[in-house]
Amino acid sequence: MIIDCHGHYTTEPAKLKDYRAAQIAHYENPSRPAAEIEKISDDEICESIENNQLRALKERGADMTIFSPRASGMAHHIGDEAVSKTWTRICNDLIYRVTQLFPDNFAGVCQLPQSVGVPIRNSIDELERCVNELGFVGCNLNPDASGGNWTGPPLTDKSWYPFFEKMVELDVPAMIHVSSSCNPNFHATGAHYINADTTAFMQFLQGDLFNDFPDMRLIIPHGGGAVPFHWGRYRGLADMLSKPPLNTHIMQNVFFDTCVYHQPGIDLLFRVIDIDNILFASEMFGAVKGVDPETGYNFDDTKRYIDALDLSDEDRHKVFEGNARRVYPRLDAQLKGRERQS
Amino acid sequence: MIIDCHGHYTTEPAKLKDYRAAQIAHYENPSRPAAEIEKISDDEICESIENNQLRALKERGADMTIFSPRASGMAHHIGDEAVSKTWTRICNDLIYRVTQLFPDNFAGVCQLPQSVGVPIRNSIDELERCVNELGFVGCNLNPDASGGNWTGPPLTDKSWYPFFEKMVELDVPAMIHVSSSCNPNFHATGAHYINADTTAFMQFLQGDLFNDFPDMRLIIPHGGGAVPFHWGRYRGLADMLSKPPLNTHIMQNVFFDTCVYHQPGIDLLFRVIDIDNILFASEMFGAVKGVDPETGYNFDDTKRYIDALDLSDEDRHKVFEGNARRVYPRLDAQLKGRERQS
Repeated sequence: MIIDCHGHYTTEPAKLKDYRAAQIAHYENPSRPAAEIEKISDDEICESIENNQLRALKERGADMTIFSPRASGMAHHIGDEAVSKTWTRICNDLIYRVTQLFPDNFAGVCQLPQSVGVPIRNSIDELERCVNELGFVGCNLNPDASGGNWTGPPLTDKSWYPFFEKMVELDVPAMIHVSSSCNPNFHATGAHYINADTTAFMQFLQGDLFNDFPDMRLIIPHGGGAVPFHWGRYRGLADMLSKPPLNTHIMQNVFFDTCVYHQPGIDLLFRVIDIDNILFASEMFGAVKGVDPETGYNFDDTKRYIDALDLSDEDRHKVFEGNARRVYPRLDAQLKGRERQS
Repeated sequence: MIIDCHGHYTTEPAKLKDYRAAQIAHYENPSRPAAEIEKISDDEICESIENNQLRALKERGADMTIFSPRASGMAHHIGDEAVSKTWTRICNDLIYRVTQLFPDNFAGVCQLPQSVGVPIRNSIDELERCVNELGFVGCNLNPDASGGNWTGPPLTDKSWYPFFEKMVELDVPAMIHVSSSCNPNFHATGAHYINADTTAFMQFLQGDLFNDFPDMRLIIPHGGGAVPFHWGRYRGLADMLSKPPLNTHIMQNVFFDTCVYHQPGIDLLFRVIDIDNILFASEMFGAVKGVDPETGYNFDDTKRYIDALDLSDEDRHKVFEGNARRVYPRLDAQLKGRERQS
């Protein structure tokens, strides 16, 4: 089977966006009415999925998407902790309904109720709820809740450790994924996302996080940001900083997805990064929704780029399925349960 | 000839660093003595260059470096405008002396006296001094004087325009180059540099800067940050933002250097980016000083990677010399003057 490890619910019913707008309006001006979400029917959810992600998934030849709320919608820099908690719970509950309506095609990954200046340990309850009660298989962890101002501590700071401990205990990975940017220097999908990927990797390089968490698994999306293109720089920096080689220092625990939207980029990714560290993903429909005039296909139809590689059957299986099942063991267990039933 | 468009004086005499330490100490505590720089002799400069950059330049088979003060040393976030002005002038004067002592091997590019919250127009005087009086051929422009907090406006903001107008008037390009980072999230050479490159490109993509400055030329160093690796993403974003194709929207005015420290990265750069937009550079001795155990050669010996490409003589000439002479017309004029004399 083919598992896309990076999809967001970017076709969510308008009622969700209406709720968010009302929630923010109320936060900014408490004299306005408190927000209430209008009931979203199963039909509305089905329609939003069947005509979009599910259609494209099938057309492009994949089977399943590891699915989470819209990344730019998390917007942890808006409102306060209470706003973030309520919003996060609603978003995650909607993902849960998608996974229940389409159990063969969508596995849940949760947003976290992060908020500027709020300890990450306050996100543990929602992680536990999503994993233990909703059957989610991972989470999206925002390394910059401030939305492009980068006012919090690096991921190697001890303040993150309680959350990492819980991830290890629950045996779920995190995708390191920022949200929208409120810093006019950083376009969200064109700069902030890619910068955050690069930044997270370099934080891991500077630190010794995986000495403390040898079993933790993190996915850096968008092909690892700038890292594969500058792999020599990072190998050299590890040496200069007297760290072990990247393969032992970082790459036992960190994985890159294939959200790189052209053939030369995918070629480089597979040339430089070990096959065990690459997870198929497209992030459709996400940052880049159009058709590439050079190919006639969608930029984010990343399966085509991988199909064009000369991979052995074993490597192909790793990228499309095996690695994802290893990195997301709870997904693997769910799939095995279903395989036994069928 | 072979021109390396990106070198910093990272082997500067200790007296310069001593001065800077004293300058900062005085700024932080005015009761301490005002800093004075100890006289640096020509011999000291010659020794610092001949045993380092010049030796490596010759060993690696290049002829000339476009040379500027240490990038991380600019540190525009330290002190105030007066501190930055004094420090900048001293640094640029030292580069001038290098260019006078080694006119065949070094051309000057200046640091600017940027400072947090200070208008960039206040840097015009120093640019004019360096170009008109010291014979410099370009400048390094810091898109984030705050050193990783990104508190200033994007490069497309009108507040930058007076400086851009002066650049066009003087016919000098700018390399977009941040300095050190005071944000613990961003390692300077491993995250801040690369992020800034990516950020600047995306700012150009969002804006229409080159409609207003069709003759301005900007170099994005470190191979353009993450941009070539994600070229499909940027092509797609241009389309989504209803901008012209990148080749007309940006790449008539923006150039990437070859500071990418491994063969696969260089291969990608040349596969994706038009040969007219690539300038040879190594940034030695800069971010990555070691020897790559996989090749036995220095990571930053980028000429080896380019030599390994299958380039036509014409393309090779463009990358090593022609493009640099086109982007830095004042260097071209200086070289032509010398060629006539010899």
